[in-house]
Amino acid sequence: MNYHLPRIALVSCLSIFSIGLFAQTAPRTGDAKLTEYWDPQVRIITPGKTASDAPSDAIVLFDGKDASKWKSQKDGGEVRWKIEDGALVVARGTGGIQTREGFGDCQLHIEWRTPAKVEGESQGRGNSGIFLMGKYELQVLDNYNNRTYSNGQAASIYKQTPPLVNASRKPGEWQTYDILFTAPQFYADGSLKSPARITVFHNGVLVQNNTTIWGATQYIGTPNYEPHGALEPLALQDHGNPVAFRNIWIRPL
Amino acid sequence: MNYHLPRIALVSCLSIFSIGLFAQTAPRTGDAKLTEYWDPQVRIITPGKTASDAPSDAIVLFDGKDASKWKSQKDGGEVRWKIEDGALVVARGTGGIQTREGFGDCQLHIEWRTPAKVEGESQGRGNSGIFLMGKYELQVLDNYNNRTYSNGQAASIYKQTPPLVNASRKPGEWQTYDILFTAPQFYADGSLKSPARITVFHNGVLVQNNTTIWGATQYIGTPNYEPHGALEPLALQDHGNPVAFRNIWIRPL
Amino acid sequence: MNYHLPRIALVSCLSIFSIGLFAQTAPRTGDAKLTEYWDPQVRIITPGKTASDAPSDAIVLFDGKDASKWKSQKDGGEVRWKIEDGALVVARGTGGIQTREGFGDCQLHIEWRTPAKVEGESQGRGNSGIFLMGKYELQVLDNYNNRTYSNGQAASIYKQTPPLVNASRKPGEWQTYDILFTAPQFYADGSLKSPARITVFHNGVLVQNNTTIWGATQYIGTPNYEPHGALEPLALQDHGNPVAFRNIWIRPL
Amino acid sequence: MNYHLPRIALVSCLSIFSIGLFAQTAPRTGDAKLTEYWDPQVRIITPGKTASDAPSDAIVLFDGKDASKWKSQKDGGEVRWKIEDGALVVARGTGGIQTREGFGDCQLHIEWRTPAKVEGESQGRGNSGIFLMGKYELQVLDNYNNRTYSNGQAASIYKQTPPLVNASRKPGEWQTYDILFTAPQFYADGSLKSPARITVFHNGVLVQNNTTIWGATQYIGTPNYEPHGALEPLALQDHGNPVAFRNIWIRPL
Repeated sequence: MNYHLPRIALVSCLSIFSIGLFAQTAPRTGDAKLTEYWDPQVRIITPGKTASDAPSDAIVLFDGKDASKWKSQKDGGEVRWKIEDGALVVARGTGGIQTREGFGDCQLHIEWRTPAKVEGESQGRGNSGIFLMGKYELQVLDNYNNRTYSNGQAASIYKQTPPLVNASRKPGEWQTYDILFTAPQFYADGSLKSPARITVFHNGVLVQNNTTIWGATQYIGTPNYEPHGALEPLALQDHGNPVAFRNIWIRPL
Repeated sequence: MNYHLPRIALVSCLSIFSIGLFAQTAPRTGDAKLTEYWDPQVRIITPGKTASDAPSDAIVLFDGKDASKWKSQKDGGEVRWKIEDGALVVARGTGGIQTREGFGDCQLHIEWRTPAKVEGESQGRGNSGIFLMGKYELQVLDNYNNRTYSNGQAASIYKQTPPLVNASRKPGEWQTYDILFTAPQFYADGSLKSPARITVFHNGVLVQNNTTIWGATQYIGTPNYEPHGALEPLALQDHGNPVAFRNIWIRPL
Repeated sequence: MNYHLPRIALVSCLSIFSIGLFAQTAPRTGDAKLTEYWDPQVRIITPGKTASDAPSDAIVLFDGKDASKWKSQKDGGEVRWKIEDGALVVARGTGGIQTREGFGDCQLHIEWRTPAKVEGESQGRGNSGIFLMGKYELQVLDNYNNRTYSNGQAASIYKQTPPLVNASRKPGEWQTYDILFTAPQFYADGSLKSPARITVFHNGVLVQNNTTIWGATQYIGTPNYEPHGALEPLALQDHGNPVAFRNIWIRPL
Repeated sequence: MNYHLPRIALVSCLSIFSIGLFAQTAPRTGDAKLTEYWDPQVRIITPGKTASDAPSDAIVLFDGKDASKWKSQKDGGEVRWKIEDGALVVARGTGGIQTREGFGDCQLHIEWRTPAKVEGESQGRGNSGIFLMGKYELQVLDNYNNRTYSNGQAASIYKQTPPLVNASRKPGEWQTYDILFTAPQFYADGSLKSPARITVFHNGVLVQNNTTIWGATQYIGTPNYEPHGALEPLALQDHGNPVAFRNIWIRPL
């Protein structure tokens, strides 16, 4: 293959459609092909109809009808949450639910809605949680006109890191989380090799920017890392409020 | 303020709505308030109607009508690209455009469309580019059924890092980039302190995951960092094809 | 300048001194100069006589004799710790000391010694601490045959992250910390932009590997970030034990 | 175990040995034990006599006498480099050498010396290289009073990233590299999951600060990542100059 195009052609191309970046410096000359490579090829996928819809390589965890990818955390049996109007709704006291399959590094899309009728305050209002690997909680809360502690807000890493901003919608409206999660890694002796990290967009707004997670979420005392598998189930919390979830899809990375 | 709630209350709360995380270990006891903090408070913003719409704290760079936040890279004057059907369309040969204001770390949303009528191949088809800080190019290209070099694909960091997947839509359809950009930092002597990093979602699909940028984009030869300001204009490339852009908003971070 | 050396020369060079990396693939041809750059030039410094000695661009904070770069944290006056045998020794009850100058990102070398005569146990034995920016504590402790809580060990980020290994020397022996510290960054509204990070070698052994710091060290309750300046004094703790320090130098990064 | 010490004791402890950090804020009260944890325990190792000496958990790759952990890259047989005065010296034209064992993430200590008699200039003087995983080159060069291209200097990631400073010793003197290396990770389809990163101290001075590596070192054209195993041999280059190496030890991380 002849990599050596006539130099005059390259120069003329640059001069016609210049973007003005090279104004102060002489244009570089040489073989532009030396910084191109064709392999490995990039895998082709089909994106969803909108950025919120599942692309072709995602695993759809809940499509509005079928909860069979989940089980109860109480007894490992069928999910006892309600399916209403295409949403999976917490049934108070039935316990959390978790996926039957495990996941590690992933891109996760999930939509949630707190009750339109406002009851309670602070942590008592529209409270649920998304537990990555069953251990690391991204808080779900009705945080619209509802002050609570900063590291317990909606989109906080619960009891660790507040969101950058509070981008909450009103109660009764659907909200989205778009999540990038990097799983922690452990040495053979069980000590921590690298902590988990998370990036979150809340209703399209950046709220966690490659945040390091300190350890498994703890309600009391300090978080800590205890070794676990590379793939662990995703869990949703029953905190006693009828929070709804829909359009849940995940892309293992 | 009394931080010391009766411990029995906490324990009963946990036992009713347990998510099953503590099954193997004894529940922790103690004052849960010690890991809560209320200050600083988290700033409240209003998200856009959808995740693609500008939130209340974004700077809208192009709303479909008004290109006054941009100028021509050729002569610093008015933008000579066309405004058609709410889109800003490259007018071949008029040169790139750049924002009048400078930006550093940011969240950027931008939508783009390559011509429905397919002409050319590889880099010759629907080519444009988004230059963060005027220097670091995220490639725009009609990459639907159009093989090119991997590190020159749509959503590649041009001549550096290919996207994780090819999530291209068909020519003539609107596509989205949601971008997190961290600016490079330089020491006083001009040497590099920390390189730029970028995360990109293409049509909602992760394609760059906190990727380190090697230096200013170069068509020929190796990239390199030369020191520049903390805020630099965002630029869009005139590569000779009538690529359209719309709904451009940015949140400085 | 002629960048185009005869290609035959390059090929023969590679073939004579090949390191066997290119065995499976055809050797690349082309202009090797396109991936070389000469500017900016790299600043020249003189390293110390050994890797523990201060290089020419370091600020020597304690050279064995002169404590004038430090002041008392109790009253801002002269340091009341003792200078003995070239070491700066904690004088119980005189309070911590801190540098008069502030520092942010830095490489820090510091040597320390706990008393040869073992008294107390756990946190009570040879306890002191190095507070980066006066806020983020790297623990100093006689941890030789002395069990304590893991996140309070020598070389832990106190009450946060244990060291990867316990590389302690015996009490009475000099030990070294070589530290890379990246300061936290804050937004204008006081919220956290990026957390502090730290890499530590204890007696030459990696013990913290680019560890994210959760916030200012807290003895009770959760750490938290409160905004502070880009440069803050380095502090050494008076925890009541006569711990000695020597050969302290810092390179702002 | 009783975690609940009398609170009065803790408060008095803080008041006697206060380090002055809490001057502006009221002291926190509560149970300090809630942020301590004892498990998992931290593994105990014995550091070397100095920070340059191998700790007890290191693999000694060359102790001054025995080169049996290495083999020739030319034919896989015995190393044909010379062992002289406790050093392993490049024998021109015998080819590079590599370890028989593979390594991934690691802490690596290595000492090297370029010839006292200065011959050649730029890349022709005292040139060798350390190839992490056999692919990612940390440059070895006599760079004392010897200008070369910045991204080809001693302690550069060759043809990628210059060192932060030039901390070279004179030719004929022993120099040290202390290296932290994080291996790249690949997806099942061979595409890059996370790039390699490297931190280097040259003669005790930070020269690479968690630098991202762009791909396998290339003499001509752009670097690129091709998938490889999690463990790959460490290699030393025969670039035709009699560079000497000694005291080589590695700690897999």
